Amino acid sequence: MATLGAQRKHKVTVVGSGNWGTTMSKLVAENVKANPNLFDQTVQMWVYEEEVTIPKDSRHYDPSNDKPQKLSEVFNRVHENVKYLPNITVPSNVVGNPDLVDSCKDSTILIFVLPHQFIPRVCDQLVGKIMPFARAICCTKGVDVSEKGIRLMSEAIGMSLSIYCGALSGANIASEIAQEKYSETTVAYDPPPMDSRAPTPKGSPTASQVDLISPSKPVPSARSARLKALPNEYPPLSHENVRKLFHRPYFHVRMVSDVAGVSLGGALKNIIALAAGFVDGLGWGDNAKAAVMRVGILEMVRFGKEFFPDSVHTSTFTEESCGVADVVTSCMGGRNFRCAKMAIERGESIFEIEQKVLNGQKLQGTSTAYEVNTFLKSQGLEQEFPLFTAVYNILEKNVRPEDIPELIEPKA
Amino acid sequence: MATLGAQRKHKVTVVGSGNWGTTMSKLVAENVKANPNLFDQTVQMWVYEEEVTIPKDSRHYDPSNDKPQKLSEVFNRVHENVKYLPNITVPSNVVGNPDLVDSCKDSTILIFVLPHQFIPRVCDQLVGKIMPFARAICCTKGVDVSEKGIRLMSEAIGMSLSIYCGALSGANIASEIAQEKYSETTVAYDPPPMDSRAPTPKGSPTASQVDLISPSKPVPSARSARLKALPNEYPPLSHENVRKLFHRPYFHVRMVSDVAGVSLGGALKNIIALAAGFVDGLGWGDNAKAAVMRVGILEMVRFGKEFFPDSVHTSTFTEESCGVADVVTSCMGGRNFRCAKMAIERGESIFEIEQKVLNGQKLQGTSTAYEVNTFLKSQGLEQEFPLFTAVYNILEKNVRPEDIPELIEPKA
Repeated sequence: MATLGAQRKHKVTVVGSGNWGTTMSKLVAENVKANPNLFDQTVQMWVYEEEVTIPKDSRHYDPSNDKPQKLSEVFNRVHENVKYLPNITVPSNVVGNPDLVDSCKDSTILIFVLPHQFIPRVCDQLVGKIMPFARAICCTKGVDVSEKGIRLMSEAIGMSLSIYCGALSGANIASEIAQEKYSETTVAYDPPPMDSRAPTPKGSPTASQVDLISPSKPVPSARSARLKALPNEYPPLSHENVRKLFHRPYFHVRMVSDVAGVSLGGALKNIIALAAGFVDGLGWGDNAKAAVMRVGILEMVRFGKEFFPDSVHTSTFTEESCGVADVVTSCMGGRNFRCAKMAIERGESIFEIEQKVLNGQKLQGTSTAYEVNTFLKSQGLEQEFPLFTAVYNILEKNVRPEDIPELIEPKA
Repeated sequence: MATLGAQRKHKVTVVGSGNWGTTMSKLVAENVKANPNLFDQTVQMWVYEEEVTIPKDSRHYDPSNDKPQKLSEVFNRVHENVKYLPNITVPSNVVGNPDLVDSCKDSTILIFVLPHQFIPRVCDQLVGKIMPFARAICCTKGVDVSEKGIRLMSEAIGMSLSIYCGALSGANIASEIAQEKYSETTVAYDPPPMDSRAPTPKGSPTASQVDLISPSKPVPSARSARLKALPNEYPPLSHENVRKLFHRPYFHVRMVSDVAGVSLGGALKNIIALAAGFVDGLGWGDNAKAAVMRVGILEMVRFGKEFFPDSVHTSTFTEESCGVADVVTSCMGGRNFRCAKMAIERGESIFEIEQKVLNGQKLQGTSTAYEVNTFLKSQGLEQEFPLFTAVYNILEKNVRPEDIPELIEPKA
């Protein structure tokens, strides 16, 4: 039914080749093989080229050829990302391509799996070089929050490239999914109605020119841009068909329409994980930890509804993998949780832990807590988000972790 | 405002003196002291009398008096339940009373904190002996499920005594609350409109005569019985005032109206904890565990809405302590979770674990899984609850734990 009359197939590019990008390529490649009527059988994976030396303990180590080689060449020869996802064989229909524009140029589906900070410059290079009716899915977690407003990664991609961009987020650890351990994810995909007669937008802004989405003064988003409809020769990109691209027996996908909620979940959970770590570090037990998680999920809901009232549904946070399940996973053993717990147990600040344990690398939770607090202050809404505000104030040593119950105590 | 014109105060009895009952007495006693305009300053605690010998390591051990003594007498002398909640001092305004009827006879608020199986016979002894306009709160988790239907503990109490009965449930471990470690709970309280002129109902059924609530043929519940309104001399038992009886700085209370949802949460979570234990025992990691928890919470919602459509709200399970937080706690370290995990790791059945580790005591999760399955089968609804059904089938060795992802895979 879905492909009735469709003469063309969707071609897929995974933009990114780290451990999450390579994992995504693997599962997407399995799915294009399982759905040959919908998808072109070759998946392109853009590889940020670098020289790699195959380690001696790799099954691909060859003593007669142990000089540095190009990562993309090694990948295409051994079908394994020896540097970022070792010991996992990726299907041979994934082609590593070091040329960004070439890897994307005739694809109708672009899956972005890049570190946060690379997204603007990669998008800038692709402006005008992709199919005008392509669709994107952003698998990078996090949002840009500042005093001016909140910018979703998906919005940054979509506006920069003048295409629709959805989001994928869930309780997902790349290496576990690569090993085909069971997990779930949430894909948000909700393209607005598009005018099939509309010309390709010209002079699209670059990612760096894209304004922030301020809650007080929303700027035109990708939704209101003129997006080009998918030609009829292609199978429709319905929820059903998008799901077929990601869903695997070991990777269960639920489709939703709330892109903002899915994106916020992946960012705000890190603040909650810090709070859970503080409480656990005090030795207060699992009830206290569960309470902090519950309060945190409801603050996520409030945050989403306050700043994205047209898009966000409560259920995205309370019922989907990108919400409750990702919070649970992050608060059971994630890095933010573990470092916050360690800080309390050792009587050190979390910044000392970042220095000592993470070699100065910043936790996502600490930066998100500061960014969100700056934004909430600018909106005069700190009091409406007592847990997020408490985490910030604990980091700033304005309050103690022991004060959390009092600070988040609901008023009668 | 709330007490304007009220000349009398509410007297409270805690029916039960185990570790949870004693903990409840402690916190309620603290709250009646904090709210002298609402509550009588003495809290009665019904003590199931038994002879106790104070252990040598107790701070109340007296070598000159180490013979067995009555539990209630020891309690009233040392203000500690030396047998069931040692080392916790209970305020001296709690009076241990071994006479059930005497402890309840002039109380307007009865808090039931008894083991499940004692509730019917205790209620039978109280019929006609309590104030006709008393209100009850049931703190015992669990529901009675059989082929015939589902009976909530609160309904059994309410119908037996012809009074209104709410429910309290949450991510609560008595000993942690007794130590004033922070946690949360949910109190469901939603009395129907009552006729203040109605006479006291005569010839109330005994608990054993109370019919089960069958989803196919609902029987008159306490809601439709003629309940006697609280006389105007008493402060109203609004959500605000009920909350004042339970809420403490270390024990945060959220009030809801969904008694069925709160009651179901405390029972069904144990099935989910078994599933989480199976998956964790397979070494599948935190993502898999979080996925099972998420799916389980949504099956709770479906179960509640299917069988208690007039009462149950999704948010009771997804947003309250009695739902999501209790599931989280139970799946982090509860007994059902630990035994299920151990069964998989050791390659033994959970019944062998019950024998070896619990000395033959049954896990709540296993009996609830069987009861719920019997009921679902009778309704022809096994397929609508794939996780609950999978747990039953794993216990029955009809399927393997490894099959869980396939069994709960959502259809596109």
